Amino acid sequence: MDHLKELDRHFSEHREAHLAELNDFLSIPSISSLSGHKGDMRKAAEWLAGSLKAAGLENISIDETSGQPVVYADWLHAEGQPTLLIYGHYDVQPVDPLELWDSAPFEPEVRDNKLYARGASDDKGQVFMHVKAVEALFKTHGKLPVNVKFCIEGEEEIGSPNLPAYVEENKDKLAADVIVISDTGMQGPGQPAVCYGLRGLAGVQIDVKGARGDLHSGLYGGGVQNAIHALVELLASFRDKEGTITVDGFYDDVRPATEEERGEYGKLGFDEEALKKELGVSELFGEPGYSHLERTWTRPTLEINGVFGGFSGEGIKTVLPAQAGAKITCRLVPDQDPDDIVQKLRSHIEKNKPAGVTVNITEFDKGKPFLTPYDHPAIQAAGKSYERVYQVPTAYTRGGGSIPIVAAFDEILGLPVVLMGFGLSSENFHAPNEHFHLENFDKGLRVIGDYYFEVSSALSGAE
Amino acid sequence: MDHLKELDRHFSEHREAHLAELNDFLSIPSISSLSGHKGDMRKAAEWLAGSLKAAGLENISIDETSGQPVVYADWLHAEGQPTLLIYGHYDVQPVDPLELWDSAPFEPEVRDNKLYARGASDDKGQVFMHVKAVEALFKTHGKLPVNVKFCIEGEEEIGSPNLPAYVEENKDKLAADVIVISDTGMQGPGQPAVCYGLRGLAGVQIDVKGARGDLHSGLYGGGVQNAIHALVELLASFRDKEGTITVDGFYDDVRPATEEERGEYGKLGFDEEALKKELGVSELFGEPGYSHLERTWTRPTLEINGVFGGFSGEGIKTVLPAQAGAKITCRLVPDQDPDDIVQKLRSHIEKNKPAGVTVNITEFDKGKPFLTPYDHPAIQAAGKSYERVYQVPTAYTRGGGSIPIVAAFDEILGLPVVLMGFGLSSENFHAPNEHFHLENFDKGLRVIGDYYFEVSSALSGAE
Repeated sequence: MDHLKELDRHFSEHREAHLAELNDFLSIPSISSLSGHKGDMRKAAEWLAGSLKAAGLENISIDETSGQPVVYADWLHAEGQPTLLIYGHYDVQPVDPLELWDSAPFEPEVRDNKLYARGASDDKGQVFMHVKAVEALFKTHGKLPVNVKFCIEGEEEIGSPNLPAYVEENKDKLAADVIVISDTGMQGPGQPAVCYGLRGLAGVQIDVKGARGDLHSGLYGGGVQNAIHALVELLASFRDKEGTITVDGFYDDVRPATEEERGEYGKLGFDEEALKKELGVSELFGEPGYSHLERTWTRPTLEINGVFGGFSGEGIKTVLPAQAGAKITCRLVPDQDPDDIVQKLRSHIEKNKPAGVTVNITEFDKGKPFLTPYDHPAIQAAGKSYERVYQVPTAYTRGGGSIPIVAAFDEILGLPVVLMGFGLSSENFHAPNEHFHLENFDKGLRVIGDYYFEVSSALSGAE
Repeated sequence: MDHLKELDRHFSEHREAHLAELNDFLSIPSISSLSGHKGDMRKAAEWLAGSLKAAGLENISIDETSGQPVVYADWLHAEGQPTLLIYGHYDVQPVDPLELWDSAPFEPEVRDNKLYARGASDDKGQVFMHVKAVEALFKTHGKLPVNVKFCIEGEEEIGSPNLPAYVEENKDKLAADVIVISDTGMQGPGQPAVCYGLRGLAGVQIDVKGARGDLHSGLYGGGVQNAIHALVELLASFRDKEGTITVDGFYDDVRPATEEERGEYGKLGFDEEALKKELGVSELFGEPGYSHLERTWTRPTLEINGVFGGFSGEGIKTVLPAQAGAKITCRLVPDQDPDDIVQKLRSHIEKNKPAGVTVNITEFDKGKPFLTPYDHPAIQAAGKSYERVYQVPTAYTRGGGSIPIVAAFDEILGLPVVLMGFGLSSENFHAPNEHFHLENFDKGLRVIGDYYFEVSSALSGAE
C-alpha cells in the first residue's frame, strides 16, 4: 500500500496548514436556520468552492436553489473507473445557549487534541476531510483512482427543503455509481463503522371524538363513551405486552437480517448492561427473540410519540372528555413501504374502532427505509480502508433513525449509499461545545484517501 | 288540605311583594370567589338574617368562620315534632363574561315569566322560598308544624372550605331529624323530582416513568419501553370494551338498586334518543344490562379525566417519551368505600404494571356516596307535596354527581338528606343569563309549605 504511506507523509507534513484552513472554514457562522446569517451562508459556500478549486477539482459551481446554494465540483478523468458522489453540508446548527460554550463557537480552539467549534464534527470538518483527501491524492499520486463529484448543500440542518428538487433537476450531472456521506458517527472511540442501512418513517395522528363537548363526569359518567378510554383501548391494541406490533401484516414485507449480518452485530460486543445504566432503566424492552441492536437496526417499530386529552393541570377535574388524540410513528425497515404501512394502520384503526366515538386520521410525512446490501463491494471496501488505518475490525452497522436526504438520494438516483462517518456521539453536535476528536480527523483523512483506491478496485476490478 | 288553600291565597296575595324582596336579595353581588366582594358578602348575610327575623324565626345569628359567615336561625316550638335542618347558600358565581348577559346580572328582570339574575336559581331564589314558606305558615297557621333550623352558608361556590368545620363545631346546635336542601334541579319542566342519592368520588393520578429522559425514537425505538405505550396498556386494562370495570372487587360492595327503584326509573320515560341528539353521539355507551339512568345513578364508574405524555404540538416529533400520566376518578355508589376503592385501584395497577417502567400513584380527595333510602318517610313526604302542587307524579331520582357538602352533612350529622330542588338544568346557573322559571318559584313556595305538614305527619305520625 504505497499510496497509504505517501498519504500518511503528506497529511503529517501539512497537518498545521490543514487545521489552519479548517479553522477559517469553521470561523464562518453559516447558520442556515437564522435569516440574519444569509451573508455568512454565501461566504461559506464561496470559501468551500475556493477550497475545492485549490484542491484540484473542476467545474466548480455555486448552484442557486430556492434557498441556500449547493456547491458542486467534480473531477471526471479516471476513465473506466467508478464515480463517487460525495454529499455533505456546509451549514451548521444555531449555537444557543451561548453561555454554555467554554470557547466561542466560531473561534475554533484545540483542547486535549479535540477541535472545539460549531460544525467541527457536523459537518464542515468531515466535508473538509474529503476535500483534503482529494488534494492529497493529486499531490502524491498526480490523479484520482476514481471519478468524484462533490455535492455540498447548505440546508441540511433545516431539513434539506430544496435538495430533492435540486437532485431531481440535476440527475445527469449527479449521476454516479455510489454515494459517499461522511456525516454520521463511528461505533465508539477507536471503533470505525460503516453504516449501510437506515430505517424509514411513517406515522399518523389519531383524533378521537365522542360527545359534542366535554361532559360532567357526575351527570354523564358511565353512560357516554369517554374519548380517552376509547383512545387508550385503541392505542393498546397496536402492540402486545411484549412489544410485538399486532397490526395485521405489519411485518409481512420485512426483509430479515441475514445470518451473516446478525453474526456481525453479535461480534460488536454491544454492552446492554451499560445501556441500561445510561438510560436509567431496570430492563431493556422489545420484540422477543432479538438483541437490542437487532431491534433498533433491523426491526420496524410503532411508537406513540404523544398522547393528549382532557385535563392535565394540577389536581383533579372530574371531566368526561369529548376529545383525545395521539401521535404514532413507525420506523420501517426494507422492504416495508411507508404508504402500505399507513394503509395497514388505517385498517387496524377501522377494525379496532371503539364504540361511541368517531376517529379521524391524519398522515405525517413519510420516508422510505434504505439498505445498501451488507456485502455490496462499496460497503466492504469502506470497511477495509477503516481497518487498514485504525488497525481494528470495522463495525458494519445500520442506523435506527432516518436521514431523509439519504432516502431521497436513494429514491431519485437509485444508488448504493456508503455512510462512512468519523464523528462520535459524545461530540455534542447540535449542542454547546461541539467538538471533533483530531485523532479521527487525522485517521479519517487517511481512510478516505485509501478508500478511493479501495472502491476503485472493488467496483471496477482494476486499480 | 286546608293549609294548602290558605298558603295558595297568601302567596297569590303577596306575589309582587315577595318578588320585590327577592330582587333586593339578588341585587347584592355576593360573589364569594372574588375578594373585592367581601363587603357584599356581609351585606347579603345581613339581608338574609333580617329576612329570617321578619319571617318569624328566632335565635338569628351571623356565625363567623375562617371565611364567609354562616347565617343561622331556628324555630323550635313544635314539641314532639321532627326538626328540619334547611341548608342553602347566599353566595353566587362570578358573572364573566359580562357581555354575554342580556340584562345586568345584579339588576333582576322578569322576561317571559322568568326571573333573570345571578343567583336567581342557584341558590338565593331557592333559599328565599324556604324563608317565605316559613313566614307564610306563621301568618296563615300561627305556628310551624315542625321545628326548623336554617343553616345558610356563603362559600358553596368555592367548595365550602369552612362548612365541615362549622358543622363539626356546632353539632348540637345543628342536630335535626332530616336535612332539606333546595339547591338542585327538577327532572324537567313540569316534572318535579326528589333526589335521594348521590355518587361519591375517589381517584388517582398515575405517573409512568421509563428512561431517564426522552429518547430519539430512531436510535432507541423498539429497544426501550415507551412510557406512553406502558400507560395506555395499563389504562386499557381498567375497563372492558363494553364499559364494565375490570378492577378486581370493584363492584363487590355495590348495593344494587331495588326492583322498586328500577321500576320508578323506568316510569320516568327518559328519552335516550333525545339525549343522543343533544350530545351529538350516535350511540350511548355503558355497562351492559342497565339503562342510561341506572348507569349514571346507580352504578359506579371509572373515568379517565386526562391523559398526557410526549409531544402534543402540531405535526410530528419522533420522540420516544420517558414519561406519561393520567388522571382517573371513580364515581362511587353505596356501599362502596372510597378508601377501599383506591386500595383496589392500587392493587390493579400493581398487578398490571407493564415491563420497563416505574409507576407512581397520587391519591385525590375522596367523597363518600350518599343514599337516603328511597322509601324513607321524609323522601316520600317530599314526593307527595310535589305531586299535590304539580298534579303529576314525582320522579324519585338519584344524582350521578357528588355534592361534597351533602356527603359532609351525611358523615358528620348522620342524617337523611332530602334534595328537593326547583331549578331546571336549562337555567344557566354558573353561566351568563342565569334565570329562574317563576312557575317553579310559585309552585315551589306551595310545595315547601305543604312539605312541612307532610314531613311532620310522616316522621311523627301526627299532624
